[in-house]
Amino acid sequence: MSELRYDPIQGRWVIIATDRSRRPHDLLMNHRPAHKVRFCPFCPGNEARTPPEIVALSGSDPTGGGARGWQVRIVPNKYPALSVEGNLERSGKGLYDFMRGVGAHEVVIDSPDHEADFASLPVDHLTMLLGAYQDRQRDLYRDRRLQYVLVFKNHGAEAGATLPHPHSQIIATPIIPRTVVVELQQAQAHYQQKRRCLFCDVLNEELDRDERIVKASEHFVVFAPYASRFPFELMIIPRQHAHLMSSASPVAMKDLAACLRDACRRIKQLLDDPAYNIVFHTAPNTQAFDTPGHYWHTLPEDYHWHVEILPRLTRIAGFENGTDFYINPTAPESAAHYLRELPGGD
Amino acid sequence: MSELRYDPIQGRWVIIATDRSRRPHDLLMNHRPAHKVRFCPFCPGNEARTPPEIVALSGSDPTGGGARGWQVRIVPNKYPALSVEGNLERSGKGLYDFMRGVGAHEVVIDSPDHEADFASLPVDHLTMLLGAYQDRQRDLYRDRRLQYVLVFKNHGAEAGATLPHPHSQIIATPIIPRTVVVELQQAQAHYQQKRRCLFCDVLNEELDRDERIVKASEHFVVFAPYASRFPFELMIIPRQHAHLMSSASPVAMKDLAACLRDACRRIKQLLDDPAYNIVFHTAPNTQAFDTPGHYWHTLPEDYHWHVEILPRLTRIAGFENGTDFYINPTAPESAAHYLRELPGGD
Repeated sequence: MSELRYDPIQGRWVIIATDRSRRPHDLLMNHRPAHKVRFCPFCPGNEARTPPEIVALSGSDPTGGGARGWQVRIVPNKYPALSVEGNLERSGKGLYDFMRGVGAHEVVIDSPDHEADFASLPVDHLTMLLGAYQDRQRDLYRDRRLQYVLVFKNHGAEAGATLPHPHSQIIATPIIPRTVVVELQQAQAHYQQKRRCLFCDVLNEELDRDERIVKASEHFVVFAPYASRFPFELMIIPRQHAHLMSSASPVAMKDLAACLRDACRRIKQLLDDPAYNIVFHTAPNTQAFDTPGHYWHTLPEDYHWHVEILPRLTRIAGFENGTDFYINPTAPESAAHYLRELPGGD
Repeated sequence: MSELRYDPIQGRWVIIATDRSRRPHDLLMNHRPAHKVRFCPFCPGNEARTPPEIVALSGSDPTGGGARGWQVRIVPNKYPALSVEGNLERSGKGLYDFMRGVGAHEVVIDSPDHEADFASLPVDHLTMLLGAYQDRQRDLYRDRRLQYVLVFKNHGAEAGATLPHPHSQIIATPIIPRTVVVELQQAQAHYQQKRRCLFCDVLNEELDRDERIVKASEHFVVFAPYASRFPFELMIIPRQHAHLMSSASPVAMKDLAACLRDACRRIKQLLDDPAYNIVFHTAPNTQAFDTPGHYWHTLPEDYHWHVEILPRLTRIAGFENGTDFYINPTAPESAAHYLRELPGGD
C-alpha cells in the first residue's frame, strides 16, 4: 500500500507509491519512448484484462461498443496510487507526518474506439462520459474519508498518458490537494470581503473585456486566463454559480460536452494535436467537514467548479520546478485570438 | 518587455513574455526534437555571438579556456524573461494586478568545454562556478527592486535545456516566488513555536534516522527528502545554519562543489545520465524589506539555504498539474540506498 507523506518545508503532501517501488532500471524503461503497443487492454473484447468494472454504460446504441456493447467503462486502476482498503493510520514519525494511501484510483475508458479523442467523439457520447464523472464523484463523496475527488485526462505521451486508448482517471484523496486549498482560500477571502464569488467576478471581468474569450455558450464560457501558466491554456467555467460539478443539470452537461469538444478541436487543429491535460476542479467533499467547528468548512459560495485545459507545448524547467513561478511565451490574448479565428465547430 | 500578471484564483504571479510572443507555429518548432546543432554560441571563439559579458573568470589556467582564456562566463540572456530597465508600474487592471517584467535574466556558461557537466568538471572548477553564483547574488541584491534571485540549472532537453553546452541561469524577480514564500512561512511558523530552524530540525532528523542519507561531508549533508516529489530527488543542506548562500565561506563552497559533483556522478551512473534540474534556494533580498513595519520580514533564523537536485524520470501529468499533489513511484529510502551503494567518487 502506498503512503502519504507530509513535507514540513513545503507544507505539501506527497504520495509515495511504495508498492510499485521502482528500481532504477524500471524507471529508465518507463522513461524511454514506448514501442508500438500491439495489445490494448482497453479495447472491446479485452475486458477480462482489466480489473472487474465499476460501471459500464451502453448509451443509446447497445450494440455499437464491441462484444459487450459498452460505450464508457470505468474500472479500478490496475496499479493504483491510492486504494480503498484500510484505515488512514495518521501518525507522526519524528518530525514527519504520515498516513496510509487510502483513497480511490479509477480509470475511465472514454470510448470503445481506440482512435477517438475529445475532438472526435460525438457530443452525445461526451455528455454520457461527463455524466459518468458526475456519478463517480457523487458516489465517492459518500465515503467521508475521501476529502477530494479529481477527474483528469492526460492526452498524449508528453502529458503523461501511458496508453494511447482514450481514457481519463479519477483519483479520490484523503486530503484536499494544495492547489484546491489555495483556490478555496482565495475565494473565501474574496467572499468575506466583497460578498461575491471570486470566480463569478473573473467570469464577468472576462465577458466585459472580451479580449480572451474563445467561446461563450448558453451555460459556459471558454477563455484564456489572464495569468495563464501555459501557452493556449483554457478555462471553461459555468455561468451559473455552483460549487459541485456533480450538481450540474444534464442540459448544462450537454452544453459543456459541446464546449469541450469545440475547444479540443480548435487546439488539435491549430497546434498539430499537441499533448494536453484536462482537469475538472470541483469543491471538496462537504460531508467530510460537516462537524461543527471543523478546522475547514466549504460553503456553496466558497467555490465555483470549472474545467482547465493545459496544453503541454513548453517544458517545465528548473525555474518552474524550483519556484512555482511560470514563464509563458504566448500572451493569453494572442492564444484566444488564434483559437477564436479558426473555422471551428462542425 | 514582458509582464508580470497575478492570478487572483491561484494567488500566484506568472511571467507573460509577450516580447517573444510565440505564434502557434513557433511553439511547434520549439516542441519538436531539436536537430543536431552545429554552431554553439557558448563555445570559445564565439564570444561575439552572445551579448557582452557581465563576468569572465579565468581561474588558475588563463590559457585553458579558448581564445580569451575564460573558464566561466556570465552574459545577459539574449531572450530575457525579465529585464533591468524601467519601472515596475504596479497597477490594477479591473480585477487583475499587473507589473512590468523588471528583473534580470543571465546565462552562466559553466565551462568552455562543450561536453562537460557537473559530474565531469573538476572540483576546483565547480568551486569557481559556485563562487560566481554567490557574487551575482550579492550584486543583484544591491538592487532593492529585486526581491529574489534564483540560480538554477537545466541539464538535458527533457529538463528544459535548449542548448547542450553546459550552462546555468540566474533569474532575479521583483516578487518572492510562491515556493519560497511557502518555505519562509513554514520556517517562520516553526521558529515562532519552537525557537528552532525547521531546516536544522529536518537535517538532524535525517542524521538521526540515517535512512535517506547519500553522503555526509564536513559542511554538507546530501539526502533524499522524506516526502520527495520525484524519484531520486536529493537535497543538499549546509550543516551550519545560514539564510544566504552568498554568506558561505570559500572552504564550505569547495565542499559543496565536491558534494554536487559526487551526487551528479552517482545519478549519471545509476540512471543513465538522466535530465535533471538543480535549484539553489537562498533567502529573499532582506534589503528590499528593511522598511520598519513592512508586510514581510526575513530574519536570519527564518530561512536556511539549500540546493535541490530534481531528476526528470517521470512525467508531470494532469494529476500533478491540476493539484500540486505528486505521485512518486520510488521510495526515498530506496533511492538513497541505490545511490549510496554505488562505488562513487573518483
